[in-house]
Amino acid sequence: MQTSKHGLVVSAHSADFVWRAGGAIALYAQRGWTMTVVCLSFGERGESAKLWRQPGMTLERVKQDRRAEAERAAEVLGAQIRFLDLGDYPLRVSDEALFQLADIYRELRPAFVLTHSQRDPYNFDHPLATHVAQEARIIAQAHGPAPGEPVLGAPPVFLFEPHQPEQCEWKPQVLLDITEVWDKKRQAFELMAAQEHLWEYYTRVALQRGVQASRNSDAKIRYAEAYQRVFPQVTGELA
Amino acid sequence: MQTSKHGLVVSAHSADFVWRAGGAIALYAQRGWTMTVVCLSFGERGESAKLWRQPGMTLERVKQDRRAEAERAAEVLGAQIRFLDLGDYPLRVSDEALFQLADIYRELRPAFVLTHSQRDPYNFDHPLATHVAQEARIIAQAHGPAPGEPVLGAPPVFLFEPHQPEQCEWKPQVLLDITEVWDKKRQAFELMAAQEHLWEYYTRVALQRGVQASRNSDAKIRYAEAYQRVFPQVTGELA
Amino acid sequence: MQTSKHGLVVSAHSADFVWRAGGAIALYAQRGWTMTVVCLSFGERGESAKLWRQPGMTLERVKQDRRAEAERAAEVLGAQIRFLDLGDYPLRVSDEALFQLADIYRELRPAFVLTHSQRDPYNFDHPLATHVAQEARIIAQAHGPAPGEPVLGAPPVFLFEPHQPEQCEWKPQVLLDITEVWDKKRQAFELMAAQEHLWEYYTRVALQRGVQASRNSDAKIRYAEAYQRVFPQVTGELA
Amino acid sequence: MQTSKHGLVVSAHSADFVWRAGGAIALYAQRGWTMTVVCLSFGERGESAKLWRQPGMTLERVKQDRRAEAERAAEVLGAQIRFLDLGDYPLRVSDEALFQLADIYRELRPAFVLTHSQRDPYNFDHPLATHVAQEARIIAQAHGPAPGEPVLGAPPVFLFEPHQPEQCEWKPQVLLDITEVWDKKRQAFELMAAQEHLWEYYTRVALQRGVQASRNSDAKIRYAEAYQRVFPQVTGELA
Amino acid sequence: MQTSKHGLVVSAHSADFVWRAGGAIALYAQRGWTMTVVCLSFGERGESAKLWRQPGMTLERVKQDRRAEAERAAEVLGAQIRFLDLGDYPLRVSDEALFQLADIYRELRPAFVLTHSQRDPYNFDHPLATHVAQEARIIAQAHGPAPGEPVLGAPPVFLFEPHQPEQCEWKPQVLLDITEVWDKKRQAFELMAAQEHLWEYYTRVALQRGVQASRNSDAKIRYAEAYQRVFPQVTGELA
Amino acid sequence: MQTSKHGLVVSAHSADFVWRAGGAIALYAQRGWTMTVVCLSFGERGESAKLWRQPGMTLERVKQDRRAEAERAAEVLGAQIRFLDLGDYPLRVSDEALFQLADIYRELRPAFVLTHSQRDPYNFDHPLATHVAQEARIIAQAHGPAPGEPVLGAPPVFLFEPHQPEQCEWKPQVLLDITEVWDKKRQAFELMAAQEHLWEYYTRVALQRGVQASRNSDAKIRYAEAYQRVFPQVTGELA
Repeated sequence: MQTSKHGLVVSAHSADFVWRAGGAIALYAQRGWTMTVVCLSFGERGESAKLWRQPGMTLERVKQDRRAEAERAAEVLGAQIRFLDLGDYPLRVSDEALFQLADIYRELRPAFVLTHSQRDPYNFDHPLATHVAQEARIIAQAHGPAPGEPVLGAPPVFLFEPHQPEQCEWKPQVLLDITEVWDKKRQAFELMAAQEHLWEYYTRVALQRGVQASRNSDAKIRYAEAYQRVFPQVTGELA
Repeated sequence: MQTSKHGLVVSAHSADFVWRAGGAIALYAQRGWTMTVVCLSFGERGESAKLWRQPGMTLERVKQDRRAEAERAAEVLGAQIRFLDLGDYPLRVSDEALFQLADIYRELRPAFVLTHSQRDPYNFDHPLATHVAQEARIIAQAHGPAPGEPVLGAPPVFLFEPHQPEQCEWKPQVLLDITEVWDKKRQAFELMAAQEHLWEYYTRVALQRGVQASRNSDAKIRYAEAYQRVFPQVTGELA
Repeated sequence: MQTSKHGLVVSAHSADFVWRAGGAIALYAQRGWTMTVVCLSFGERGESAKLWRQPGMTLERVKQDRRAEAERAAEVLGAQIRFLDLGDYPLRVSDEALFQLADIYRELRPAFVLTHSQRDPYNFDHPLATHVAQEARIIAQAHGPAPGEPVLGAPPVFLFEPHQPEQCEWKPQVLLDITEVWDKKRQAFELMAAQEHLWEYYTRVALQRGVQASRNSDAKIRYAEAYQRVFPQVTGELA
Repeated sequence: MQTSKHGLVVSAHSADFVWRAGGAIALYAQRGWTMTVVCLSFGERGESAKLWRQPGMTLERVKQDRRAEAERAAEVLGAQIRFLDLGDYPLRVSDEALFQLADIYRELRPAFVLTHSQRDPYNFDHPLATHVAQEARIIAQAHGPAPGEPVLGAPPVFLFEPHQPEQCEWKPQVLLDITEVWDKKRQAFELMAAQEHLWEYYTRVALQRGVQASRNSDAKIRYAEAYQRVFPQVTGELA
Repeated sequence: MQTSKHGLVVSAHSADFVWRAGGAIALYAQRGWTMTVVCLSFGERGESAKLWRQPGMTLERVKQDRRAEAERAAEVLGAQIRFLDLGDYPLRVSDEALFQLADIYRELRPAFVLTHSQRDPYNFDHPLATHVAQEARIIAQAHGPAPGEPVLGAPPVFLFEPHQPEQCEWKPQVLLDITEVWDKKRQAFELMAAQEHLWEYYTRVALQRGVQASRNSDAKIRYAEAYQRVFPQVTGELA
Repeated sequence: MQTSKHGLVVSAHSADFVWRAGGAIALYAQRGWTMTVVCLSFGERGESAKLWRQPGMTLERVKQDRRAEAERAAEVLGAQIRFLDLGDYPLRVSDEALFQLADIYRELRPAFVLTHSQRDPYNFDHPLATHVAQEARIIAQAHGPAPGEPVLGAPPVFLFEPHQPEQCEWKPQVLLDITEVWDKKRQAFELMAAQEHLWEYYTRVALQRGVQASRNSDAKIRYAEAYQRVFPQVTGELA
């Protein structure tokens, strides 16, 4: 139903896209799509514990290191990456930044959008990121904000898996088979030196979702990523 | 991911499949699939008000009339139809009937299943029908009930739209474009002489879901049917 | 919108109607309505602890005592009372008993129905009672079960307050001012000798709901009863 | 329980009140009430697609056109209308605007309030509008913000039907019979030239809610409007 | 599992901690803990109706009176108390105030936190207070905001009982026996001269929760306080 | 608050207790408690795929094999085990079996109970097992079913983790540290020859819950089991 070959990923911090959507990104990049990751912050204050333990560390150096890591991960996955540098813990999004994100929607006209869960009691930047990603999408659908420019259609939005899914009122509604690009996702993990403790955690997540994908189909799937939908699926197929 | 070209519809009463799934049935029949409707009852006591107003009406005659109507509707839609004649208002399902339904699953090996919503405060036969449809599916997946026979895989189950959707804790998660078979669905409506008051109601339902399908996509869709999923969708595609 | 002046209360055990709906019963009785309480059981096994502590007590004697208590309470409240004697802990309802209840619906044609909450992890007889009360209502609305007899309309169903409301997924949607009949409700409490520990508990419930009724209106209400609705309210008034 | 004959409608954009509450407004206006609509914005950027397609269109002209349309619609329905001109897509509400709305509450002392659903993934201005409408009501109930002035009581708040109800976690709890004023509501629709595609959509909504209102009562109702309650209903009547 | 003997209570207005957490505060103070109450506002505009009825009252005097009352109540309960004076009806929290609260977390390193429910349609300051209390906790867990300082661990957060619990989507998950400190809680109530109407209301709440605590255990508990958990309980004990 | 040193586990099929509660069982057994597992069925038809693939297999032999496996696993974990042999796929529970289970409650007077989740769309025996486990507990609390015998108190009920937790509306509310008995749990896994595919799956579950337990506390926990509570926790401790 769509012809755009762009996908958009809105990530609160600079590594979220790796753990949560690295498979989808690599899969679509491999199919020839342009996948663009927008990082609202670098996770410089809240998700860089290991860097802060180095003597003499400064906010600027953390941000540089995190940016470099994220760029390498995006490269491995085959994605474009942009940084809005809005700060974290807490993330705060001005209307100016919101419009900037709406401009990106109009520019890319993505066929689908990946972003965070609606709730996360462990991390308030995540729900804010999804709120902003969805509000920018709505603004890009309107005629008034940029008169004359073509407006955005209605790309589906998929919410990626949070760290503790049941605590976030998040439910897997889509299980995406990422087996063929698993190696790239794992390789991207290993570039995230600041969060080494997550490598095995998210490898196990991919394996569990793989078992579940097999149980919910007649296929044999080893690695999967799970998503929740915001909007109903429009389709011509039930099988 | 599947090769079977069978679809199964489990309908509490003999007309439910027309209003709620007539589009999906006609669509897949037209694509060459074998669509099988199993009616657990004729709706003879609870959904045949017009027939009961005829003088001298008997339960047997109501059942015959309802069966004939349903057979003609199935024919228009291009479906096979079977009647388990379990009674209605209240529907009661013995384990024997449950195993009979499990046998049908094993026989047809459907690639998808359509049945009722999980709740319906207006009609307790509907939630029972979906319970039975799902329990039979689970039994058909097990090795013990019919040793040696191949077991069922994991066909997705779609719950069709109840009469008052918000009161049934039912949410549209899939909007199926039925525009190309709308004429057949409407033609099947008009065979349901006993429930003429529903023709316009369900025509409006199809139009509203069509508008919504358009709003949730970049397509122009005139008629749609809405479904809720029981299980997560396993897929290789996000767009 | 209705002309019947009958109200029906379906109570799992013989005292439930006192604590949970005594105010509504007395209020409507005082307005000249016929209020009929149907007790599915006497609560003889599960809600008669004090009686069972008497030496030599038998099931029959408990039932007699509970019946007598309930009759006196109904009299104080101004209600008719009937006992189906289906047993408790666990309550079990045959289809025969279900049809008997449907007959009562057709006989009384109540303008509203009061019964238990949909869930209660402390008491499984309560959810079963509400299930049966609602299924019988649906059967009485159908033409087939009693051909020729006029069918029931659509009386609203109100679910009364369970003992630990938040644990039962029950929410007060209607706060009924029972101040003018409070004395009768309290008098009925005091006839329930077997459950003296509940007198003060349910007096406090009535006071709390009274404060809340005042907070949700511009009136000064001292005692109230709370109900949840099963169906949407059909009305011509918003104020 | 109340004596004020004022009703307040808080509408995010200048046409929302027509589709969603036009029946209630006309009904109460016809009964001699003063119905006041407060439009937080004109919907100038997000809900005026047709106007923006005209060559040389400017924001000011869109706002003028939308204001004129809304004034005519209010006149047809019999309502007063005020515009706060806070902008849309995104709507943003300063504390100053919030206090202005609280002043309106104190001025009108409405007996009931109509506003948007709590959630709407398609339109973030709607949930913000209901948040503001509810927060202003709470402020108007407090003694400190305007010492010496009488405070507001506790007018019930009704949430009107969103465009895709099930996606908004909105449930019809009140079905208001608007048959006698349907012609006015439809006439107001037809003044909304910029949104012609909604005329038939919301006519069908009114018909569906009418059928449902009939099914939930013993009355024959042709057109209805549906609302969800925020607060419990305080009442002396169950039938 | 913890060694800190500090507990933190975040209260939107200066009296909330008394009604809602007075028992927990007194209990832990009696056990030798340092309990610190942080009042975000004095409730000077929204919860001081009685004071505002005095002639010539000013905002400053209301704040002084409320502060004095709260200090006396804290003393009776054995708690420390701090006031952030952020204003009420509406409460508004700047990032500066948020960081101030995060500093308090780092300073006290509380072993548990008590604050408001997530929703409250009657009072929008309460959900904001819990949001801020939780966001400050998250910031205090991060390494970047205060490099070099030890970060906070993961103290559990308990949400105290709102005024109308079922309307706030709040569910009692923890019933804390406060019988031994009830006298102090009641004594603190009686210092709240501005809200005398709440004394009996919250005494009844404590009695009802006491009955429920007894019903959910084998103990005899006269007074209890109820809390909802935000996070799963980590434990080595099931009994 | 309790003195009994008995724990009861109600397992639908003969292996469920191993995957889902093996840690809790071993932990309490090691503390000197008597842990009793009641298997309602052997899982002979639905959870013994590997056995059914052996030529000439019969229902009786499957049951024997499954019984032997379960007995060995119970022994490794340090538990008593009983089999009610009620059949599976579908499990059906007569009132006689229900009373038998109530007798076991009265006999053991467990201080806590472990059983299945309330919902499971993949396995209808599980929700039935938890229903029965809870109904038997309620019957054992009543005085009438076994006059003269002491009644059961109110042991808390913990629901163990289903195979696909988010699909079962199940939420981890208790994370139990099982690190010290992990070896026994794993050893019990390896006795379940018929379900070898689950060994790694449930090892990963234990690791993920361990990470989450660490994140929700200040402890370092390697393996954990997650439970949902049915009833509120009654306690004197918040930390």
